[in-house]
Amino acid sequence: MEESSKDAMVADSVTGEAAAANPAAGLSRRGLLGLAIGGGVASLAVGMGAGLAGGVALGRTRAHAEAEHAYDFFGAHQAGITTPVQEHLHFASFDMMPRTDRDDLVSLLQDWTYAASRMSQGLEVSATGAVGGDAEVPPDDTGEALGLPAAGLTITIGFGPTLFENEDGDRYGIAERRPAALVRLPAFLGDDLDPQTSHGDLCIQACADDPQVAVHAIRNLSRIAFGRAKLRWSQLGFGKTSRTTSGQATPRNLFGFKDGTANILADDSAALDENVWVAPSDEPAWMAGGSYLVARKIAMLIETWDRVRLSEQDAIIGRDKGEGAPLSGGDEFAAPDFGTSAIDADAHVRLAHPSQNDGIRILRRGFNYVNGNNDLGRLDAGLFFLSYQRDPAQFITLQRRLSTDRMNEYIRHVGSGIWAIPAGATPGSYVGVGLFA
Amino acid sequence: MEESSKDAMVADSVTGEAAAANPAAGLSRRGLLGLAIGGGVASLAVGMGAGLAGGVALGRTRAHAEAEHAYDFFGAHQAGITTPVQEHLHFASFDMMPRTDRDDLVSLLQDWTYAASRMSQGLEVSATGAVGGDAEVPPDDTGEALGLPAAGLTITIGFGPTLFENEDGDRYGIAERRPAALVRLPAFLGDDLDPQTSHGDLCIQACADDPQVAVHAIRNLSRIAFGRAKLRWSQLGFGKTSRTTSGQATPRNLFGFKDGTANILADDSAALDENVWVAPSDEPAWMAGGSYLVARKIAMLIETWDRVRLSEQDAIIGRDKGEGAPLSGGDEFAAPDFGTSAIDADAHVRLAHPSQNDGIRILRRGFNYVNGNNDLGRLDAGLFFLSYQRDPAQFITLQRRLSTDRMNEYIRHVGSGIWAIPAGATPGSYVGVGLFA
Repeated sequence: MEESSKDAMVADSVTGEAAAANPAAGLSRRGLLGLAIGGGVASLAVGMGAGLAGGVALGRTRAHAEAEHAYDFFGAHQAGITTPVQEHLHFASFDMMPRTDRDDLVSLLQDWTYAASRMSQGLEVSATGAVGGDAEVPPDDTGEALGLPAAGLTITIGFGPTLFENEDGDRYGIAERRPAALVRLPAFLGDDLDPQTSHGDLCIQACADDPQVAVHAIRNLSRIAFGRAKLRWSQLGFGKTSRTTSGQATPRNLFGFKDGTANILADDSAALDENVWVAPSDEPAWMAGGSYLVARKIAMLIETWDRVRLSEQDAIIGRDKGEGAPLSGGDEFAAPDFGTSAIDADAHVRLAHPSQNDGIRILRRGFNYVNGNNDLGRLDAGLFFLSYQRDPAQFITLQRRLSTDRMNEYIRHVGSGIWAIPAGATPGSYVGVGLFA
Repeated sequence: MEESSKDAMVADSVTGEAAAANPAAGLSRRGLLGLAIGGGVASLAVGMGAGLAGGVALGRTRAHAEAEHAYDFFGAHQAGITTPVQEHLHFASFDMMPRTDRDDLVSLLQDWTYAASRMSQGLEVSATGAVGGDAEVPPDDTGEALGLPAAGLTITIGFGPTLFENEDGDRYGIAERRPAALVRLPAFLGDDLDPQTSHGDLCIQACADDPQVAVHAIRNLSRIAFGRAKLRWSQLGFGKTSRTTSGQATPRNLFGFKDGTANILADDSAALDENVWVAPSDEPAWMAGGSYLVARKIAMLIETWDRVRLSEQDAIIGRDKGEGAPLSGGDEFAAPDFGTSAIDADAHVRLAHPSQNDGIRILRRGFNYVNGNNDLGRLDAGLFFLSYQRDPAQFITLQRRLSTDRMNEYIRHVGSGIWAIPAGATPGSYVGVGLFA
């Protein structure tokens, strides 16, 4: 995922527009209906123009181009996986509405592709946007990101197991194309899952360096889904708990420890091919270039953790809190030496380490979350864990290995989901096109 | 509230340390007990050193000094009122624990002053912090802000009506010193208040440009309060909806409109003295230099709003959505002309405008919020309204005037609170000292 150069940003917007105008000719009639409902007439003309989204939208891209990033939505892989982890997350899970058909699903993906490709360039969801259209209908765009730059927005779209088949059967004629590995995750020791923060037919991961930009994306994509899909649950996150490029410092989770030291980095293409991207030789063929996303909402019992003595905290993690160095010695990036007793048998770093798991690695992309507090006056806080892997078995193996993790005393897995992440869309097409070919 | 110059930052840390060491000699024994409980021995030595908080804490301030702001905690007024509005908010309301006495309350305020003055300089809550103390006791600091700069953190502390007197009576011997105006706000038309997001004996407003820094502050101040006060409710916010300096662009709320165009600005000292700061001649004397904070959690029915046609949205607000210009003409900063019919009688801008309210002005400092979604798949989103005023009557008058606001159809006030904000602390003292003099 290349970062657009500053000079190329306006040109990129044009590309995004021209590309998206092809498959979907802007938003579908259903998408327009979602926007216009209540206003009576869907008389908007979108996506047809000269490729520039009017003064307002163009202006906001230019004004902030010096300081801000914009990432291409189109590419071999979807953005938001190896993209340098942004500061903020708004993750949303959707269920398709009852009595929707295959055309509804395809048009939804086309509409999401169109709107997402625009928003990732700092543009509004359509050329007329929040204020450029007919004043006698509801605006296409909700407007709270007017004046804000792209802020590194990436939008990553996934397909859950239930999209392929659920209790209503094969709603979209795709049951036979479900990847064999795309099934609900097995129950893990200590799971305490809330169905209201688990699963879903579709997911969207919106990451940006400005939370208002991420929220704007989810809100507008939800709105465009009107009549076809409904928000099932969503979660905001901040303070990324993983780094995906060597230039990023390792952030800290809410236990106060560095997290993601040994993550797969974006420039390690061999490791990505081995561990993250579905290969052309893998099944099914339409998933080539894609990945599998696992989301786990992990509540942290931080008040309890905060009362654990420092030496015990270090022992539980297997690293020292200050530097993040393995207890076997060296600095943060030193390889842990599991041949010594310095790292306990049930320390987190030992159980999770590739060397103890037949070399299994995953790409982590999690965020911290705080959702106010519970009735006991304790912060409702934790880690919104996100990982991308070539095969869900990688996560399952690691998570089973963690069943003896001494850290489990201080965490609860309260949400869970798995989604197939198709390859990136090419200009002129849409995310997931291969599934319907 | 002066922004510390980069060169002065380290010196400021020293000042903060030396100052705080005076009244509280670091954290009180109760504060230490809160940190150490479960670890057995409160053997920490804090706040006594040479004034430098060890390599880790000092290093993080220096490393980021170029790019980051640090505001003085001490001053004539508390920071976080006229300070340029930061990007993120963590607001927390606390209740005192049963059977606490006046000494508990005073020591809590001393401990909060000590820790807040340190954190606002990018330091940990004590000199030994997360990793510099005895490894056989729980760390003083929870550690998730290690390596992060001050990020413009301000911490603002307030006293609710129930602190002075509640159903248990005059717990702290301060009932007679309650400002006459500090009473629970009257019920307003359309109020739908949830007690779980309303009121509280004490409040802390933590604002920072990094949400992890704001969360770290509330988490650690809650922890320090152990045995004395308990978190009642808390709310995160982002995307500030007001500007407090002329250099800040006017942000947008989740209705997509610019908000705070006509706010009182930090350099308008005449307006601040008239409308925000309690004057020495006001009653009671201990509130001189302070202010009154009103918080209102205002849920926005954004899906409904999004289906309103643009012309109607503009009419409801009385400004145009694109530029924020009054419908009577001119640009964003033009004075609205209420002599014309261009601005409806029930438009928000008309009802809220000082010229329609005997010149009443308040200093707004609100943030957008999104707390996931409800069971209907609608985002639980809105405005966390914060305003500072010299007298609560200013807010009450304005809010009553808004009873005919056409915008009310799209909002619900679901949380409410009022707190007296004492003057800033001077080095060597603590926030609220005047109340106990």
